[in-house]
Amino acid sequence: MKLFNYFRSSSSYRVRIALGLKGLPYDYVPVHLVRAEHRLPAYADKLGDPLLPALVTDDGHTLAQSLAIIEYLDETHPEPPLLPADPLGRAQVRALAQMIACEIHPINNLRVLKYLTQELQQSEETKSAWYHHWTRNGLAAFERQLQLLAKEREAAGLAPSQFCWGDTPTLADCCLVPQIFNAQRFRVDLEGLPLTMAAWESAMSLPAFQGAHPSTCPDHEA
Amino acid sequence: MKLFNYFRSSSSYRVRIALGLKGLPYDYVPVHLVRAEHRLPAYADKLGDPLLPALVTDDGHTLAQSLAIIEYLDETHPEPPLLPADPLGRAQVRALAQMIACEIHPINNLRVLKYLTQELQQSEETKSAWYHHWTRNGLAAFERQLQLLAKEREAAGLAPSQFCWGDTPTLADCCLVPQIFNAQRFRVDLEGLPLTMAAWESAMSLPAFQGAHPSTCPDHEA
Repeated sequence: MKLFNYFRSSSSYRVRIALGLKGLPYDYVPVHLVRAEHRLPAYADKLGDPLLPALVTDDGHTLAQSLAIIEYLDETHPEPPLLPADPLGRAQVRALAQMIACEIHPINNLRVLKYLTQELQQSEETKSAWYHHWTRNGLAAFERQLQLLAKEREAAGLAPSQFCWGDTPTLADCCLVPQIFNAQRFRVDLEGLPLTMAAWESAMSLPAFQGAHPSTCPDHEA
Repeated sequence: MKLFNYFRSSSSYRVRIALGLKGLPYDYVPVHLVRAEHRLPAYADKLGDPLLPALVTDDGHTLAQSLAIIEYLDETHPEPPLLPADPLGRAQVRALAQMIACEIHPINNLRVLKYLTQELQQSEETKSAWYHHWTRNGLAAFERQLQLLAKEREAAGLAPSQFCWGDTPTLADCCLVPQIFNAQRFRVDLEGLPLTMAAWESAMSLPAFQGAHPSTCPDHEA
């Protein structure tokens, strides 16, 4: 498999984690997002929307959208599973992942931030306030969701989750870790998010999460 | 089951379509988004992020995030399926759904538009240009993705898709129809999107899509 990705793209980072958790080897193909290499025909012609990442399967299909790619990897390489076995657990994990992938990340990605400063001529300070607003509010909502799930587990007599959901990493952790990396980079306040940061710490203790970190990527820049 | 929803919320509309396609009865609980009823404790305490919709299952679990809810319905009520049977097809359908749910809708939802006009004091005209920009660009990308998939089908000797993917409605159509409804409401240019609008027309010919339309909802306002 080939992964077209950019070291700092958080959607790319999600898929690197999933590939690492599955223990799957892949060719890393760097596409420089800030230099707009994703808009060059060599990449852009493969996809309706030339976002990163894209996974090219061994039989030559190009897959888009990080969550769809991770579910594909989970279906084609079931061990270790990245979703719980039961429909309720799967819905809870997918919702956590989507709280990041649909509610935080899209509002803060490069093209939206560029539109703010270029088309709307907003200052860097306003852009930063925008970033902090959506990220902090989104993570606070994520924390409340983890607290609700923790109460459900307690009521069912289950031990607290070590990760976002249960005792092994899931699709939700694949999304959380890159979002926290970004939040730290932009110095977003991460106080008062105990369950979220505990899940993040559990994930960061695992080689698959460490090995997917942007600083380990071949195209990494300081 | 109970569906907490708002007639004009396009995420709510997605789930109403899925429930209709599955032929599942449910109690419709209106939550008035514009009057901020979703922030009242009766609703907000159920969820980490009190967005709409939420589905309360027969055994009392509250599920968030429309795509997670639709996959839950598909897993618990498999007929008719809303995802293809094979992992590649599933990845393609999920990616189409996410092109709308992660790339178009989040940037244009009520809270983001409010932030533009209130915190950033942008004019109604700027807000409208923002809406048109992300929706039109997102749908053009969606169209290109449908064209790529059409070429793949042709190469494999398959007949053209009638819906977004194949000959029956999927998760992708559940997302497309509400997005087109919104685009029409805000008078976004829908010219030059032949495969997208053909899929939309196929969907709109079905009772499940007609019966989920905002104009049929008990809380509908002109």
